[in-house]
Amino acid sequence: MVDAQEAGNEVVVVVSAMGDTTDELLDLAAQVTDSAPAREMDMLLSAGERISMALLAMAINKLGASAQSFTGSQAGMITDGIHGKARIIDVDPHRIRTALDKGNIAIVAGFQGMSRATNEITTLGRGGSDTTAVALAAALEADVCEIYTDVDGVYTADPRVVPSAQKIDTISSEEMLELAASGAKILHLRCVEYARRFGVPLHVRSSFSQHEGTWVIPSAEDKITTQEGVALEQPIISGVAHDRSEAKVTVVGVPDIPGKAAAIFQVIADAHSNIDMIVQNVSTHGTGRTDISFTLPIVEGADALAALHSAQDQIGFESIEYNEQIGKLSLIGAGMRSHPGVSATFFKALSDAGININMISTSEIRISVVTHADLLDEAVRVIHKAFDLDADNEATVYGGTGR
Amino acid sequence: MVDAQEAGNEVVVVVSAMGDTTDELLDLAAQVTDSAPAREMDMLLSAGERISMALLAMAINKLGASAQSFTGSQAGMITDGIHGKARIIDVDPHRIRTALDKGNIAIVAGFQGMSRATNEITTLGRGGSDTTAVALAAALEADVCEIYTDVDGVYTADPRVVPSAQKIDTISSEEMLELAASGAKILHLRCVEYARRFGVPLHVRSSFSQHEGTWVIPSAEDKITTQEGVALEQPIISGVAHDRSEAKVTVVGVPDIPGKAAAIFQVIADAHSNIDMIVQNVSTHGTGRTDISFTLPIVEGADALAALHSAQDQIGFESIEYNEQIGKLSLIGAGMRSHPGVSATFFKALSDAGININMISTSEIRISVVTHADLLDEAVRVIHKAFDLDADNEATVYGGTGR
Repeated sequence: MVDAQEAGNEVVVVVSAMGDTTDELLDLAAQVTDSAPAREMDMLLSAGERISMALLAMAINKLGASAQSFTGSQAGMITDGIHGKARIIDVDPHRIRTALDKGNIAIVAGFQGMSRATNEITTLGRGGSDTTAVALAAALEADVCEIYTDVDGVYTADPRVVPSAQKIDTISSEEMLELAASGAKILHLRCVEYARRFGVPLHVRSSFSQHEGTWVIPSAEDKITTQEGVALEQPIISGVAHDRSEAKVTVVGVPDIPGKAAAIFQVIADAHSNIDMIVQNVSTHGTGRTDISFTLPIVEGADALAALHSAQDQIGFESIEYNEQIGKLSLIGAGMRSHPGVSATFFKALSDAGININMISTSEIRISVVTHADLLDEAVRVIHKAFDLDADNEATVYGGTGR
Repeated sequence: MVDAQEAGNEVVVVVSAMGDTTDELLDLAAQVTDSAPAREMDMLLSAGERISMALLAMAINKLGASAQSFTGSQAGMITDGIHGKARIIDVDPHRIRTALDKGNIAIVAGFQGMSRATNEITTLGRGGSDTTAVALAAALEADVCEIYTDVDGVYTADPRVVPSAQKIDTISSEEMLELAASGAKILHLRCVEYARRFGVPLHVRSSFSQHEGTWVIPSAEDKITTQEGVALEQPIISGVAHDRSEAKVTVVGVPDIPGKAAAIFQVIADAHSNIDMIVQNVSTHGTGRTDISFTLPIVEGADALAALHSAQDQIGFESIEYNEQIGKLSLIGAGMRSHPGVSATFFKALSDAGININMISTSEIRISVVTHADLLDEAVRVIHKAFDLDADNEATVYGGTGR
């Protein structure tokens, strides 16, 4: 940070709570009550960043540079009033601007803000610290938002599953969005969405080295050029993501009449569950009934099942099947728009490996399938190899110009 | 608190940080730097009350009552901008008022506020939590500000030194001010000053029992009456305080010309030391020089000595003597105004016990002397007994009406 400032940059640092602080605060709350008011939980948890940011500001001052720390509300992070998972609705960083103008490094508490209507302290929920950084970068019109993490960038697949996975030097925010939505853990979906909407370039890099990481570029037109100055066409495929955090629910014997599917998804929505993939089977001939399958986060499974069971008479389905032993694999690449052979290669590779497919969903730049959980790692390796993403074949990852 | 609310009261609770929290935060800061910016130290330390107040609000909600916690700035504690020892300059408790109107118990972080000019988070320094409570009580026009402590009230002397010391049922804020200024630890001077200025009745009581403690009443006219409705005249003497936290400095051989004493005290003031008692000896015949002695807090001794030494040439004194082996004893009572025999009794008692006196200072309602530290406890017991404060003689403590 001090280096970056000395290199002539204005520097804003967004911090999380230190190490186990958040868990310790949650433990304290659990000792007091099992039903803490969300307002008070936000008050409690927001102390964590306050401690880390003050200590960091002290450390920077000790190094001879000048730093000031700011709470979320001081930094102008204005949110709605939903405690525990507030959304940012405005950013007014005038105090940060002033601190920067005076030559300070600004240290900002991530994950927290203040509600516009009630001036209450809020926390942003999952992905909140990275999103704070992106939101501030957008409001301050920063050149780049650097996201420091424990790995050195975004990979074509999880290196723990695919040892030959390669670090991606640059990726469009559209593709990064699909990767994040498909289970890549390195960046939270929310942070990528925000960066894409406001055109903030992200640099995902390691806390432990000075190496370049992965640049996430807001629009495909901004993609980096080669050393010779020739713009490379984007690669057909950017990477393979996988996700074990979902379960599959099948509602069996749904009356095959209009409105039944809608009724089911309304019940799920009312239970605050987020459905991912959906498959409606064709009506079983003669019975007038059909099956509807969908996936949702395992952590939301119990609530969703309870809600469905209580609506069984109203909807008129026969039974529910629930399966957590599934895995989702997603192939992402903006180039697949113009390369019609991608899905053929994709399904042939899985078929050749004897991997059965449960569900399929696609977008313009993504193909996702659900397999049995035990087959997921093998599926990831097979797909990674089929699209020449393995490290030894690096040169062939990019499509040639003019094709 | 919940009991007090159920009894029909509106309740505001001012909290400190829990147990060792403040020490732990100070340790963290010390690991980072030995010269933390005061602004960042305030940011860090203010996290302590935030944790305790959120947990307390959760606990009260768990008990079925309704509570909301408020930071110093949310509670409207407006201060000056002196980090670490900010003064309260205004209190705007409209959010507390609203919370009370809605039937909530309001939990407020003590010890902290927000600076008016810069909107920075400040801490109030020593006595800050009690002072927060008194300031809020004044702004909310509360009936009483209850100060919870680990003893059950204010005593006529420290019971560890004088086992026969008695709990005082009621005392004027003027006398309490002198007691606090003279070393009684139970209430901080600042809190008593604030209560006196704004007419807030204090009730000093134990956290561990429901017994009545000591009432500190803003003006003598408000003193409690007996069960028969007869107003008691105030006692001649309210108590004996002692203090081991001061050191005595003697500046030897000061040129006996106008302005030299002022120069010495300016040097001390510039070093931010607080002088308590002062004695200027008569000029030693023929030398044209005199000695000036004063007391100040031991913790400020080193800085004050350094400042004096660096001004030695300018002031022209010969040497400095420094002695931490002193103790201060103070006898306090509003009744001594109209009882001229008090000082005679006081000095005779010390003389009879063979206790030598170093320095003397008096106010209208106080006599203070400095003795050798080893003799202090004995001096406290002798004086306590001489003024019939010992428990067996309780009835004679009060002066009769009409005397």
